[in-house]
Amino acid sequence: MPPGFQELSAGRGFVGRLETGSDLVGEIERFCAEHGVVAAQVTVIGAVRRARYAYYEQNDRRYREMDSRTHHEIVGFTGNISLRDDRPFLHAHATFADEDGVTVGGHLIAGCEVFVAEVMIREMTGVSLVRVHDDATGLALW
Amino acid sequence: MPPGFQELSAGRGFVGRLETGSDLVGEIERFCAEHGVVAAQVTVIGAVRRARYAYYEQNDRRYREMDSRTHHEIVGFTGNISLRDDRPFLHAHATFADEDGVTVGGHLIAGCEVFVAEVMIREMTGVSLVRVHDDATGLALW
Amino acid sequence: MPPGFQELSAGRGFVGRLETGSDLVGEIERFCAEHGVVAAQVTVIGAVRRARYAYYEQNDRRYREMDSRTHHEIVGFTGNISLRDDRPFLHAHATFADEDGVTVGGHLIAGCEVFVAEVMIREMTGVSLVRVHDDATGLALW
Repeated sequence: MPPGFQELSAGRGFVGRLETGSDLVGEIERFCAEHGVVAAQVTVIGAVRRARYAYYEQNDRRYREMDSRTHHEIVGFTGNISLRDDRPFLHAHATFADEDGVTVGGHLIAGCEVFVAEVMIREMTGVSLVRVHDDATGLALW
Repeated sequence: MPPGFQELSAGRGFVGRLETGSDLVGEIERFCAEHGVVAAQVTVIGAVRRARYAYYEQNDRRYREMDSRTHHEIVGFTGNISLRDDRPFLHAHATFADEDGVTVGGHLIAGCEVFVAEVMIREMTGVSLVRVHDDATGLALW
Repeated sequence: MPPGFQELSAGRGFVGRLETGSDLVGEIERFCAEHGVVAAQVTVIGAVRRARYAYYEQNDRRYREMDSRTHHEIVGFTGNISLRDDRPFLHAHATFADEDGVTVGGHLIAGCEVFVAEVMIREMTGVSLVRVHDDATGLALW
């Protein structure tokens, strides 16, 4: 296995829907914490009332945060659960579309307000995904 | 399990390609109906000759439909199969890119004409995903 | 099974991170070649220093290639591994977001330079995905 790659086993799977008005990232993390999910793949279909996302400035090593109160469809979503500071952490990137189909996207942060979110969580077992500071990028990586 | 969340078991998996000229959403639903797939995760890579997608106006509670005859790459796709009116229903959101890489996206509706579609279907068993009217959003949700 | 569809079994799963500076498509293909992965689903979350992607001109039957040295977040990614010329080949489409959240996307080609890439590979066994020339589209399809 090259540095950084691990072989996983398929664990539990969960499918569910978040409540209207809840926080997209926070609610998925809370579900995982309550069910002991510490490594997983996560996908979502749905829409938000408010989108909050960020762009990482690779040279300046800081996140630039964006906030849109436009109602958006979630038209792309890739996410994974790992451990950060001993708690399940959702790292998710998403694409959002507005009423004209125009899209924006980024790294999801707290504050995305759910309108509808159909969530699928595929647990990975037999792996250790623990985020620690990475000097090469300035990010917390596993 | 919080309201709305269910634990799934992995069922069958299918990988295949749709014919050029076929209807993207309709063909996947037809495949699922023929094979008894009533709950699944679906992903697609490919391109369309025509894209038809919609945006749900959260306040007005109606879909605004869009139609593009531009040839597009499918550059993002998340979908799931559930039951609606007793038949397999594909809920899918996608992002499309044109010849300059410019993207648009939305909730897929009938009329997306396949150029190439590589489809992966992961059945979920042990769960019941049946869409019924939801008062909070005006949508048919499981 | 309709023409082109096959039932798969779940094979091995791998989760890992590519090195900063490596080639996104090439490194995933190299990993698969080294581990004998000839059919798989692939997803990625991360960011690139350089994005190279293409659009297939369906009428002219040629790829139009694009190259961006903007640092981008990867905000959508769908990919699969099949065999082309007897080697694992990654077919992947992705959406990228810039510092304003503006997105572009297309068919990934060699030259996408990794800043961070969290990669998940889900092997499919019991299927044969071998790309050969397809007259209807001009593409190499399984």
